[in-house]
Amino acid sequence: MPASIPGPVDSSDDIRLALRSWPEVERYLESCKGIIIPLGSTEQHGPTGAIGTDALTAEAVSLAVGRRSGVLVTPAQCFGMAEHHLDFAGTMSLQPATLLAVLHDLVLSLARHGFERVFVINGHGGNIATTKAAFAQAHGSAASRGLAVAPRLRCRLSNWFMAGPVMRQARELYADKEGQHATPSEIAVTLAVEPSLQSKQRALPDPAPSGPIHSPEDFRRRHPDGRMGSHPSLATADHGHSLLETAAAALSEDLQRFLSEA
Amino acid sequence: MPASIPGPVDSSDDIRLALRSWPEVERYLESCKGIIIPLGSTEQHGPTGAIGTDALTAEAVSLAVGRRSGVLVTPAQCFGMAEHHLDFAGTMSLQPATLLAVLHDLVLSLARHGFERVFVINGHGGNIATTKAAFAQAHGSAASRGLAVAPRLRCRLSNWFMAGPVMRQARELYADKEGQHATPSEIAVTLAVEPSLQSKQRALPDPAPSGPIHSPEDFRRRHPDGRMGSHPSLATADHGHSLLETAAAALSEDLQRFLSEA
Amino acid sequence: MPASIPGPVDSSDDIRLALRSWPEVERYLESCKGIIIPLGSTEQHGPTGAIGTDALTAEAVSLAVGRRSGVLVTPAQCFGMAEHHLDFAGTMSLQPATLLAVLHDLVLSLARHGFERVFVINGHGGNIATTKAAFAQAHGSAASRGLAVAPRLRCRLSNWFMAGPVMRQARELYADKEGQHATPSEIAVTLAVEPSLQSKQRALPDPAPSGPIHSPEDFRRRHPDGRMGSHPSLATADHGHSLLETAAAALSEDLQRFLSEA
Amino acid sequence: MPASIPGPVDSSDDIRLALRSWPEVERYLESCKGIIIPLGSTEQHGPTGAIGTDALTAEAVSLAVGRRSGVLVTPAQCFGMAEHHLDFAGTMSLQPATLLAVLHDLVLSLARHGFERVFVINGHGGNIATTKAAFAQAHGSAASRGLAVAPRLRCRLSNWFMAGPVMRQARELYADKEGQHATPSEIAVTLAVEPSLQSKQRALPDPAPSGPIHSPEDFRRRHPDGRMGSHPSLATADHGHSLLETAAAALSEDLQRFLSEA
Amino acid sequence: MPASIPGPVDSSDDIRLALRSWPEVERYLESCKGIIIPLGSTEQHGPTGAIGTDALTAEAVSLAVGRRSGVLVTPAQCFGMAEHHLDFAGTMSLQPATLLAVLHDLVLSLARHGFERVFVINGHGGNIATTKAAFAQAHGSAASRGLAVAPRLRCRLSNWFMAGPVMRQARELYADKEGQHATPSEIAVTLAVEPSLQSKQRALPDPAPSGPIHSPEDFRRRHPDGRMGSHPSLATADHGHSLLETAAAALSEDLQRFLSEA
Amino acid sequence: MPASIPGPVDSSDDIRLALRSWPEVERYLESCKGIIIPLGSTEQHGPTGAIGTDALTAEAVSLAVGRRSGVLVTPAQCFGMAEHHLDFAGTMSLQPATLLAVLHDLVLSLARHGFERVFVINGHGGNIATTKAAFAQAHGSAASRGLAVAPRLRCRLSNWFMAGPVMRQARELYADKEGQHATPSEIAVTLAVEPSLQSKQRALPDPAPSGPIHSPEDFRRRHPDGRMGSHPSLATADHGHSLLETAAAALSEDLQRFLSEA
Repeated sequence: MPASIPGPVDSSDDIRLALRSWPEVERYLESCKGIIIPLGSTEQHGPTGAIGTDALTAEAVSLAVGRRSGVLVTPAQCFGMAEHHLDFAGTMSLQPATLLAVLHDLVLSLARHGFERVFVINGHGGNIATTKAAFAQAHGSAASRGLAVAPRLRCRLSNWFMAGPVMRQARELYADKEGQHATPSEIAVTLAVEPSLQSKQRALPDPAPSGPIHSPEDFRRRHPDGRMGSHPSLATADHGHSLLETAAAALSEDLQRFLSEA
Repeated sequence: MPASIPGPVDSSDDIRLALRSWPEVERYLESCKGIIIPLGSTEQHGPTGAIGTDALTAEAVSLAVGRRSGVLVTPAQCFGMAEHHLDFAGTMSLQPATLLAVLHDLVLSLARHGFERVFVINGHGGNIATTKAAFAQAHGSAASRGLAVAPRLRCRLSNWFMAGPVMRQARELYADKEGQHATPSEIAVTLAVEPSLQSKQRALPDPAPSGPIHSPEDFRRRHPDGRMGSHPSLATADHGHSLLETAAAALSEDLQRFLSEA
Repeated sequence: MPASIPGPVDSSDDIRLALRSWPEVERYLESCKGIIIPLGSTEQHGPTGAIGTDALTAEAVSLAVGRRSGVLVTPAQCFGMAEHHLDFAGTMSLQPATLLAVLHDLVLSLARHGFERVFVINGHGGNIATTKAAFAQAHGSAASRGLAVAPRLRCRLSNWFMAGPVMRQARELYADKEGQHATPSEIAVTLAVEPSLQSKQRALPDPAPSGPIHSPEDFRRRHPDGRMGSHPSLATADHGHSLLETAAAALSEDLQRFLSEA
Repeated sequence: MPASIPGPVDSSDDIRLALRSWPEVERYLESCKGIIIPLGSTEQHGPTGAIGTDALTAEAVSLAVGRRSGVLVTPAQCFGMAEHHLDFAGTMSLQPATLLAVLHDLVLSLARHGFERVFVINGHGGNIATTKAAFAQAHGSAASRGLAVAPRLRCRLSNWFMAGPVMRQARELYADKEGQHATPSEIAVTLAVEPSLQSKQRALPDPAPSGPIHSPEDFRRRHPDGRMGSHPSLATADHGHSLLETAAAALSEDLQRFLSEA
Repeated sequence: MPASIPGPVDSSDDIRLALRSWPEVERYLESCKGIIIPLGSTEQHGPTGAIGTDALTAEAVSLAVGRRSGVLVTPAQCFGMAEHHLDFAGTMSLQPATLLAVLHDLVLSLARHGFERVFVINGHGGNIATTKAAFAQAHGSAASRGLAVAPRLRCRLSNWFMAGPVMRQARELYADKEGQHATPSEIAVTLAVEPSLQSKQRALPDPAPSGPIHSPEDFRRRHPDGRMGSHPSLATADHGHSLLETAAAALSEDLQRFLSEA
Repeated sequence: MPASIPGPVDSSDDIRLALRSWPEVERYLESCKGIIIPLGSTEQHGPTGAIGTDALTAEAVSLAVGRRSGVLVTPAQCFGMAEHHLDFAGTMSLQPATLLAVLHDLVLSLARHGFERVFVINGHGGNIATTKAAFAQAHGSAASRGLAVAPRLRCRLSNWFMAGPVMRQARELYADKEGQHATPSEIAVTLAVEPSLQSKQRALPDPAPSGPIHSPEDFRRRHPDGRMGSHPSLATADHGHSLLETAAAALSEDLQRFLSEA
């Protein structure tokens, strides 16, 4: 088994890399070669949703998976590829080439220490393409830099909102009102983890329908309030707690498979 | 209607950009703002498959779609992102950052001339992530360079092998022997368009199963002959002709929707 | 006055960009053009210090400054330029060229929305050079992209640990035992904001002296436990609360000057 | 002799890398370390010339050289550096830095497999500078990545239209009406390989004279129909067949020298 | 002692790398691993100062340090990061990312030959950030390229105008009329090394005060004649000779420490 | 006439940009839009030749052309693309992509001020390809940045050692002993401009013959002392003075044509 799993811990404090010292990480690596990177985005989420939604949710899911598995969780990369949201105030986007370099460098740093399984928990659809490209580039660099783990290095992208059980639950809760962006399911998770957001929710008119994504101008023209087919006012903090649990369970299994595959 | 469709032509010669003069393109742009870019890869396709499979198929599908629609088809970009196949002789791969730059530059060139709808017909799964990242980067550049079409520019990635009707037909023909790489469906199309390949096909032992893709070394270790769960010996040229027809029909509809959407 | 200051708020929730909706940001921009970006690093901080020290402190100071001023605080960029710490497990570093691109893209995103004063609160000396380089590059891009705010855009780097009052207090508290890396003053702030860290502190042998910083290997050879002349065991959570207050006061004044300068 | 030459083959099918399987390439490398890359461009070629001229000719010459020598021919890179033609509709150009990266990656891919002699047959003057720069960069990367062939790797750029015998024949056929761009000699080769082009040729007014090449706008101002001193209407398909033969003979000798030099 | 110091020489000709042959450099490396790179900038220096000031002074100081120590001096890199001066005619600036690449490549070239101590003598404040970033990037590349000297490679940035004795002397000579840009001390050095500049000096009105540096437009608006709080008309050639001597003495000591540190 | 020529000056001091103030450059631009950039390289020039040969000669020729024409001469860019010489101690090389960025940035800086004709006088064959690529990239940037001069911007590369009269004179002086690298003609110019070099010259054994250039290792293996077919011991300072005169005359004419062409 290339990478054993430490097992559940009581508190997020126990698995946050940010709270570890380097000798603790060195000891951790003696028994586990896996690590979790939360990847979010800082972008508009409709007229009532939090700009930090994708990072808040990615980090919450990551910490929940970390508590269940004992696998270390790095700080969140809160800025992702959100170019198409740039016409809405507050969106902060990395260009694809920049995000590619960020993820490349983070994977290479970890590989240098001996981490062999990098599990990225992602909260934003716009990051998927670039993250996969970054993994391919990182494999090339790990080999050309002659890192010892290069042949064993594996990266996996896990989008919490696309996990089967999460999508099923979202469908049960919201049916065709889930939509594609600023969805009630992701908003629900933010209500659970940041209670101050609850008071901001309110009924909204029907959203513009989902559709393909092109330039920022085109996006805003088609989706004037930033929503894509979604009814975030259906979200509740209770839903959020439950969805978080569902996501954590599903991704923990996914992580377990990833860490134990030959 | 932002972009009308010229309509069927008799011969591929009529829609190959390579055979047009610039005044012909200028006239074409008066009535149609759409164009097709075939995107392939040059990489191993198992012990009997052609290294050029992904480019041969992407170009064949593109030309068939071009003949049905009258939409111009650019030369194929035959080299794609195939880093994970680099441990097999003959594979030629662009790093993700390079392919991103290539597609960015091609889209920007076309946008400068007034093309508003760029339809990339892709033959290789490994290109998907990078192509999407390139589209986002191209939108940013089109705007920051002040191109007139920037707000109207749209790019669409269409993977012929993932079109619904193609996947259904592949399942009917090959069921669970289709696999993920060096599949009988793509090999069949190459047999149809390059008859010299037919004599190379032969029965093969059971392939290694499909699985996640990591480094080139890992890929070769898991898939020693390059196949991922596929039985390409089931492919015939007749299947290929039929699949090509299916793909052309499906993607022509997709293109029509793309060109006519508001 | 180019940018008025909103004034104190009760809770960090009120100034976290992550918890705002885009219409709220749009309204904010009507009266204030300033914003704070916390910039940290994820790197070894000696045998007892937290790997997240520089991000934890930068974020804590930023939120405190935000509460005093009412100026928005973006999510923290937790990964910085820490190449020279890469020989210690757990360090995650962006190459200088990558961090430059990240800060460039973040500044450009904000400038596009109309932010004119970007105040980066930094917790890591290794970020200083690259951040300044990024500002220069961002000014160039803002102009060449034709952004409306380009001539008014200003960026300021504020390193909380180098603020005069902070350095004076650190000297009073720790005299020549402050050192240069994994200092008691920064460790104290982490003890204040993350109480779980307190139990990890312990007496340590005398550290290697401070000195110039070269390659990762050279750094580890000269500073085998990661400290540079520092005695972090002197740190207490009480010190941390006080230092945080001192830093917040000093940087709030700095921010006020920055926002009100002609 | 570092690289033997396989010898003539009957059909292009026998030397197209696109039609090989990876085990065939592995076997090929046991006796020959050479390979041909056709490099073209997709750019305006005057009012009657095909936009694909430079790629069509480079590929035709490459395949002819391949048939004479038995040396493998990769798919053509059909997009090159054509920035100065971008004011004419249909031109698709890679920026110099992009083309540099493409050729770098292709050479590195081949070097990884053990190819030691990369022979680029080029159809476009605008590619020359960038290709040479790419070779230098590729040598550096091959060494820094520790590739086994690094000390033996050699790349050679062969511009078919500048081969001595080709230039002599063009002078005999067209004297001072050959010109510099959209020349009758290159147009003739396209008429030979793509007969559908023949019907488009017609008499043209005298062209603008050749001159230095600067910006796209300057180029179009000086050469309003895209020609530089050339009279492409003199071209015939017969000329094309003959010029192709001349080029193939000259470049085959050049290739032979390249493959056999110590 | 990792790097001995050759000792004083009579003439600049004896320590200019430009005047050495490669076998001479090979012999030099047998006893000394240190080398000096002069780094300047080509940018406006007020209404009477020379555009080349920063390169002229960096080179003059470097050669003086070279004569005192016998350490080789490379040609000057006369172009630096001067983006904020670009609104003044004659300024030639490298973008930060470009200067980073230049210094990276120069350090890597020297490291390949076995140089272990690279001492950059800099004449321009705007270069500092980028140079430090370049050093970090160079250390990473030296290691990933497997250079033998990688673990011993050290780079040091020495800004002659910020050396303690130089700043003291400038204060004595000019007190608060020294300013921050186009200072009398740097202008004095140019008068000493380029006598033709003396006749251009003249009394000037009071300068705009020093302040933070933002965009080129902002810089010119605040500092309409290019000076920042400086009175260059106080400069004399005699001052220049003396300041040059002071700088050479101070930096020679700094170099000596750098070369002899363990 | 797009750019008048100021006419001869007495001293190099009168045309060195480094010695101008920015208001002088502003006035210069009222009557002349041309400028000269000397481009060299810092690389081995055989067992007796100076490492700075290519920069020394490019600068000497540039200043001579400047004196004859009154056209401004910028500081020399002394580091060029010399990757293939990196196996000889003392060579300092910029990678092609770096040199491309340098020249791009320098041209853009000048274009911003209103310079329309950039005349690069180059002393090193290895720079040619990259310089041409940089010009193409610069034209693209000038347009996309919206610079006023973009449509009028022109760059010209003039290699002094390839000027017709220079090559004729070299042939007369040295016939087939001129060779390709470390040639007597370029060494002669260095003897004229740097008399200290004269005493280093001595008889040398027959050189390795010229040939194609590949990797640094290959270069050194083929040319063990760094010379390519050249007999630099034939060079004299008198030859150098005469060659310099010849080059200055030839390039002045070339410059005149460049500045006066429509």
